[in-house]
Amino acid sequence: MKLPLGYAYAATYAGIRTVKKDDLGLIVSGLPANAAGVFTQNRVQAAPVRLSRHHLKTSKGQAGAIIVNAGNANCATRTGDAVALETCKAVSNMLRLKVSQVLPASTGVIGVELEAKKITGALPRLVETLSGEGFDRVAHAIMTTDLVPKTAFAEARLRGGAVRVAGMTKGSGMIHPNMATTLGFVMTDAAIGVAQLRTILKRGVERSYNRISVDGDTSTNDTLLLLANGASGVKPSAKELAMVEAAVTDCMESLAQQIARDGEGAKKIVTIEVTGAATNEGATRMARAIANSPLVKTAIAGSDPNWGRVLSAAGNAGVVFDPWKTDIDMQGVAVCRGGLAAPFSEKELKKKLDAAECRIRVAIKGKGKGEARFWTSDLTEGYIRINASYRT
Amino acid sequence: MKLPLGYAYAATYAGIRTVKKDDLGLIVSGLPANAAGVFTQNRVQAAPVRLSRHHLKTSKGQAGAIIVNAGNANCATRTGDAVALETCKAVSNMLRLKVSQVLPASTGVIGVELEAKKITGALPRLVETLSGEGFDRVAHAIMTTDLVPKTAFAEARLRGGAVRVAGMTKGSGMIHPNMATTLGFVMTDAAIGVAQLRTILKRGVERSYNRISVDGDTSTNDTLLLLANGASGVKPSAKELAMVEAAVTDCMESLAQQIARDGEGAKKIVTIEVTGAATNEGATRMARAIANSPLVKTAIAGSDPNWGRVLSAAGNAGVVFDPWKTDIDMQGVAVCRGGLAAPFSEKELKKKLDAAECRIRVAIKGKGKGEARFWTSDLTEGYIRINASYRT
Repeated sequence: MKLPLGYAYAATYAGIRTVKKDDLGLIVSGLPANAAGVFTQNRVQAAPVRLSRHHLKTSKGQAGAIIVNAGNANCATRTGDAVALETCKAVSNMLRLKVSQVLPASTGVIGVELEAKKITGALPRLVETLSGEGFDRVAHAIMTTDLVPKTAFAEARLRGGAVRVAGMTKGSGMIHPNMATTLGFVMTDAAIGVAQLRTILKRGVERSYNRISVDGDTSTNDTLLLLANGASGVKPSAKELAMVEAAVTDCMESLAQQIARDGEGAKKIVTIEVTGAATNEGATRMARAIANSPLVKTAIAGSDPNWGRVLSAAGNAGVVFDPWKTDIDMQGVAVCRGGLAAPFSEKELKKKLDAAECRIRVAIKGKGKGEARFWTSDLTEGYIRINASYRT
Repeated sequence: MKLPLGYAYAATYAGIRTVKKDDLGLIVSGLPANAAGVFTQNRVQAAPVRLSRHHLKTSKGQAGAIIVNAGNANCATRTGDAVALETCKAVSNMLRLKVSQVLPASTGVIGVELEAKKITGALPRLVETLSGEGFDRVAHAIMTTDLVPKTAFAEARLRGGAVRVAGMTKGSGMIHPNMATTLGFVMTDAAIGVAQLRTILKRGVERSYNRISVDGDTSTNDTLLLLANGASGVKPSAKELAMVEAAVTDCMESLAQQIARDGEGAKKIVTIEVTGAATNEGATRMARAIANSPLVKTAIAGSDPNWGRVLSAAGNAGVVFDPWKTDIDMQGVAVCRGGLAAPFSEKELKKKLDAAECRIRVAIKGKGKGEARFWTSDLTEGYIRINASYRT
């Protein structure tokens, strides 16, 4: 699939992380793009989060570049604000942008000073190598404990021509909402106004990143940016905007699922569907409670069709529902009907649960139409290994 | 320490669990005791939880016996209510109590039918062997994944003589609030009215079981019962009641800490203290967020002084505070001052964090007086091993 027009990318090793592996990325839009962002809800916010938010505000949603580093979160440091600002100034100078048109993002360890000169020193070679082909390299550069880079592409064919969407993301500690930093950058060459872009991003996040638990409970650095530079020359009509929104949302949904799939130590991705709740919001809360339950996640790791844990987790969501009207399926097999054990072959279902893709379906029988989907990963010993020694 | 007067205990193997190990316990008070209970807040409630609650209500807080089994939660089963009631009836017949004076409790797997006749068949030999010495045996019988039995004792010397408190509890999956069933039974021979008993239990739970996260997010079977039979002949004066309450609360605090210490796979108990929050409630939420953070818990498992994770977890509690006025100590060593890294020897602190008792202190500098203590365990690979194969 073709990349959106009018963007260029570059990555390099700037010496921020100890392993010699690209750790600095630059995304540039030839024409300043309309931009929208969502950020962590944590009370503790990294310097680049605060500055990106500030820049989006002062520029009224105009962005020309994203400068992103891995290996250091630039959070809870003495020089954090100064470093983030100095970095943006250097980028703006080299690319002749306003400082407020540069959006910084960081991921990595908290509480260690980040040296601005590592970034500013690497900038000239970054700018020199900017190209459309740099996309994948940036997707690699932002990885931390990720095992695989995560990218997604989509296209919408409108009357005026095709518009393209491309996104990249990082994050793999999705075992619990506050596990690790998520960064996401989604670019499109459609011409979309800032207000519409904000709406598309907000609704899209609700159906993607917020369905893998990156919601109120987030890291200090979470940043998701959506850029639309109009380089396709195609401005969607009011009707066509829904098609572009669908393309952007597909892209974000794919990125979010890739994060769940790459969960630290995870061997499986688990899709949780709840139907028949009184409201969508209630269904979402129940699905989230199941997705966050270590008991459910370890059962999946062990291919154990332990539906009692699923029912109990649903019961902890603080949502009113009747357990005696609740059906549960795992891998399409009925394991619970009306809150009671359904007859099934444990041996066969165990085998089915060995698959890399698991599905838990909770259906409440009644008048409710509320439904939700959620993605999570299984919880394995590998998760512990990674996190008991991440920093050292 | 002496046991409270007027109680007798017995345990036996009734064939409920597959391993041949006591799984049925009986606690009897010679004189019907005043009783109070707190139960799971889960929407899905096991039959014995519903029946115990009902019995406490209809008896107006009078209890003569507790019948408790491990190995089967009697939850989400076709015959659950009938089994719980049949069990209570059999106990009431043998001990000449009203049915409502018998309180049932169960722990174990969900969704598997429990056979009443296993319990009723074992009752005669249980009643035959009732004695003061049976206390420890019941504490053993209620264990599931617990590695050690958990008991606590206290005494208060009042003007009219001594009164005694003894408690037992089970539970070891305390990694997350909804991990596993907690059962707790606390007996005293003081003469305390039902209304006062309820107040003592409620306040005590707030300072003990609810500080290891057994709060809104609980299993289907959580049950904590407090009995006061007055067998000491000592009725505390209004002033002395505080001494008895302190003894009961000490006992409950010890039991709760023992649960955290025995957390599934845990090698360490972690005490989390938060001071300087605007309110006690805010401090409690912050302490709970830290205690529930898998990132903090895995860092402790790896003896990693990763204070950034502590700060980030605190930031996720939804409580307003200033990270730049926040100090963090680990094992008494300053690791963060004013939201920034403090200088410390990582090597030495790592060694200190190898201890079985870890302490994290978060102090917010300001006018706030809110404070809270919380206990949790570290999160190890052993936890995963236990929970990926609990049922099978």
